[in-house]
Amino acid sequence: MGLVVQKYGGSSVADAEGIKRVAKRVVDAKRNGNQVVVVVSAMGDTTDELIDLAEQVSPMPTGREFDMLLTAGERISMALLAMAIKNLGHEAQSFTGSQAGVITDSVHNKARIIDVTPGRIRTSIDEGNIAIVAGFQGVSQEGKNITTLGRGGSDTTAVALAAALDAEVCEIYTDVDGVFTADPRVVKKAKKIDWISFEDMLELAASGSKVLLHRCVEYARRYNIPIHVRSSFSGLRGTWVSNEPQGDQQVEHAIISGVAHDVSEAKVTVVGVPDKPGEAAAIFRAIANAEVNIDMVVQNVSAATTGLTDISFTLPKAEGRKAIDALERTRSSIGFDSLRYDDQIAKISLVGAGMKTNPGVTAGFFEALSDAGVNIELISTSEIRISVVTRADDVNEAVRAVHTAFGLDSDSDEAVVYGGTGR
Amino acid sequence: MGLVVQKYGGSSVADAEGIKRVAKRVVDAKRNGNQVVVVVSAMGDTTDELIDLAEQVSPMPTGREFDMLLTAGERISMALLAMAIKNLGHEAQSFTGSQAGVITDSVHNKARIIDVTPGRIRTSIDEGNIAIVAGFQGVSQEGKNITTLGRGGSDTTAVALAAALDAEVCEIYTDVDGVFTADPRVVKKAKKIDWISFEDMLELAASGSKVLLHRCVEYARRYNIPIHVRSSFSGLRGTWVSNEPQGDQQVEHAIISGVAHDVSEAKVTVVGVPDKPGEAAAIFRAIANAEVNIDMVVQNVSAATTGLTDISFTLPKAEGRKAIDALERTRSSIGFDSLRYDDQIAKISLVGAGMKTNPGVTAGFFEALSDAGVNIELISTSEIRISVVTRADDVNEAVRAVHTAFGLDSDSDEAVVYGGTGR
Repeated sequence: MGLVVQKYGGSSVADAEGIKRVAKRVVDAKRNGNQVVVVVSAMGDTTDELIDLAEQVSPMPTGREFDMLLTAGERISMALLAMAIKNLGHEAQSFTGSQAGVITDSVHNKARIIDVTPGRIRTSIDEGNIAIVAGFQGVSQEGKNITTLGRGGSDTTAVALAAALDAEVCEIYTDVDGVFTADPRVVKKAKKIDWISFEDMLELAASGSKVLLHRCVEYARRYNIPIHVRSSFSGLRGTWVSNEPQGDQQVEHAIISGVAHDVSEAKVTVVGVPDKPGEAAAIFRAIANAEVNIDMVVQNVSAATTGLTDISFTLPKAEGRKAIDALERTRSSIGFDSLRYDDQIAKISLVGAGMKTNPGVTAGFFEALSDAGVNIELISTSEIRISVVTRADDVNEAVRAVHTAFGLDSDSDEAVVYGGTGR
Repeated sequence: MGLVVQKYGGSSVADAEGIKRVAKRVVDAKRNGNQVVVVVSAMGDTTDELIDLAEQVSPMPTGREFDMLLTAGERISMALLAMAIKNLGHEAQSFTGSQAGVITDSVHNKARIIDVTPGRIRTSIDEGNIAIVAGFQGVSQEGKNITTLGRGGSDTTAVALAAALDAEVCEIYTDVDGVFTADPRVVKKAKKIDWISFEDMLELAASGSKVLLHRCVEYARRYNIPIHVRSSFSGLRGTWVSNEPQGDQQVEHAIISGVAHDVSEAKVTVVGVPDKPGEAAAIFRAIANAEVNIDMVVQNVSAATTGLTDISFTLPKAEGRKAIDALERTRSSIGFDSLRYDDQIAKISLVGAGMKTNPGVTAGFFEALSDAGVNIELISTSEIRISVVTRADDVNEAVRAVHTAFGLDSDSDEAVVYGGTGR
């Protein structure tokens, strides 16, 4: 008998009908002979409604009490799901993050999981129950306070539980059919990926793919837990994410896994920086002290006549204000001329382990963009990824051009990548 | 520095404005030099909305999961209240029933408090925080499952915490000004009671007065915790419930505390019961086995010619079906003729420790009802209470007549009872 961890997001349990549909799916997995642990998010807009209430009583809700508030959302959905399952004639018990043994650090609103001690879950499933666990929440090691894991926390809960329980698979149910070779809203011919490696999935997640968050994939890779991303609506086979393809995951090893894009970043350019040792360090120390995460960094070649250079970097738009303020405070000590802030940019990334051994990929990427008339502003590469920054207006055309150029379009005869089931 | 436990009901925290108003009141108590522990119910209709959701996924929601669901309501209100208090510049921490050390038995949906171990609350208030505790909920001693205390559970939480923390007073904030000599919706001239003994309050609660539940008063009497029932809207002094009046609770010892009425009961008559030993016992054993609580019981004088008698009793309407079914199953073994079920009755009770030493009270009660043309169907008495059953249609007139006859009307010169502050 296998152990399966299933995770259902808020859109899958948005109302009573959704909860009943999920209950049937869970019971099916149990009937197929599995032990089943289910991680569930808050219903539909519940979290947003709670945030709205919080903002009505306090201008900047945060910290311990905000976590206490938000965790009410999963409490509701998990109890309702347990009731719906019982109503189908199966035994179910729901558990808070704390009861499930999800131990975190004490950083409220974005805690990290330190340990999972799933004794109560193990007992519950060994007694024949289906165990339902609240996603997104835990309890701090010190102080025993309720914490939340931040964005995408429920996926991480599911993977962490799967690891602690040594599950065969962690199934992430969502409202799309899986991971695609590009965002299907942008590229009509995008294909569902049948299997993808942890490494490529990590790069896609870091480059703007929204289906799985980086942190969840990272956790799964560390504990080698296969993830199966699939739709809670269609029930079709989705995308497997694991170290190696298994069983019927027939995969021709592909050069490119997919094209990701991200329009959530902005570009900051520090103009007229004296080109001498320590200047760049001073700039990025100021940014780091402001707790701003940066992504790509480029330093221009210094103009010989002036001895000055420009440094550009990208960062989440949401942190733009903080970064600019931090830099302005250091302007006199660093001695740069001015700051430019540009939030009309997009990042386009090509991801695939195959590019390590295929020297033509970078050239092909730039040619495709050039042929589409897209100008490149910044470039950054890793072993298995190339990213460029373009104008935000160009993003859709750029993604489509690259997708086609690398033979990823589903109707193309050149589509050798993850031929898969073709569904 | 005193320690005050305050409890706010759902109508006091029905929306963000209500929560902010309560926050101000809590902060006032803290500013007055008290340590403050606040027990809070779920916001307005939250609990009903959760029950509605539960009924959509499961026809008869009950048990462990139902408790898990319902406790989400207090989690939301307590976290919001803590945020609102912080926003006024005071430190506040919210605690679930489990975190607050409210230990119960394992009877889901109507658990009883076994023990309170308020170590975290004590630490929190000693550190200068205002502690907010979720009402209505606890954690079972065995199994560590979340439980709820049933109807009026938040009042009981407050009194139990006040006892465990050795508080000076437990303030129960509600949407009325206190306990009245009769229901003010029925008797316009009802007076707010300034002080009332635990004993009289227990009888009023058992007789239909809704302001405080019997179980909460019982707990307060056992641990001798004075209760102050007052309005969260007006902030005026309300009704003190304690062993003896204290300080400025100027009280003339009264014969009668008040008149209570109850239209939630029904009457069952078992007709034609053989008048021999063991018949009544068999009837009430059948009722008890069906876990139905009965209130008043009357056995008619046996008719000499037939050797048969009738037995009547009252019980909550909600349990009528269960009782009738249980009796029907025993009809052949007991051998009665028929069953009559009547849910058009009302119970009217006169309560006051003074009646022990005033022999005219019973006569006066019956005379007042007779003068008002109200027919009496059943009578039951305790040392400090007389109750009668009448037609439901007569209840308002009966209550007003009795209230006037015993000089309880607020404009009457004969109003000697709890003259009080007369505010």
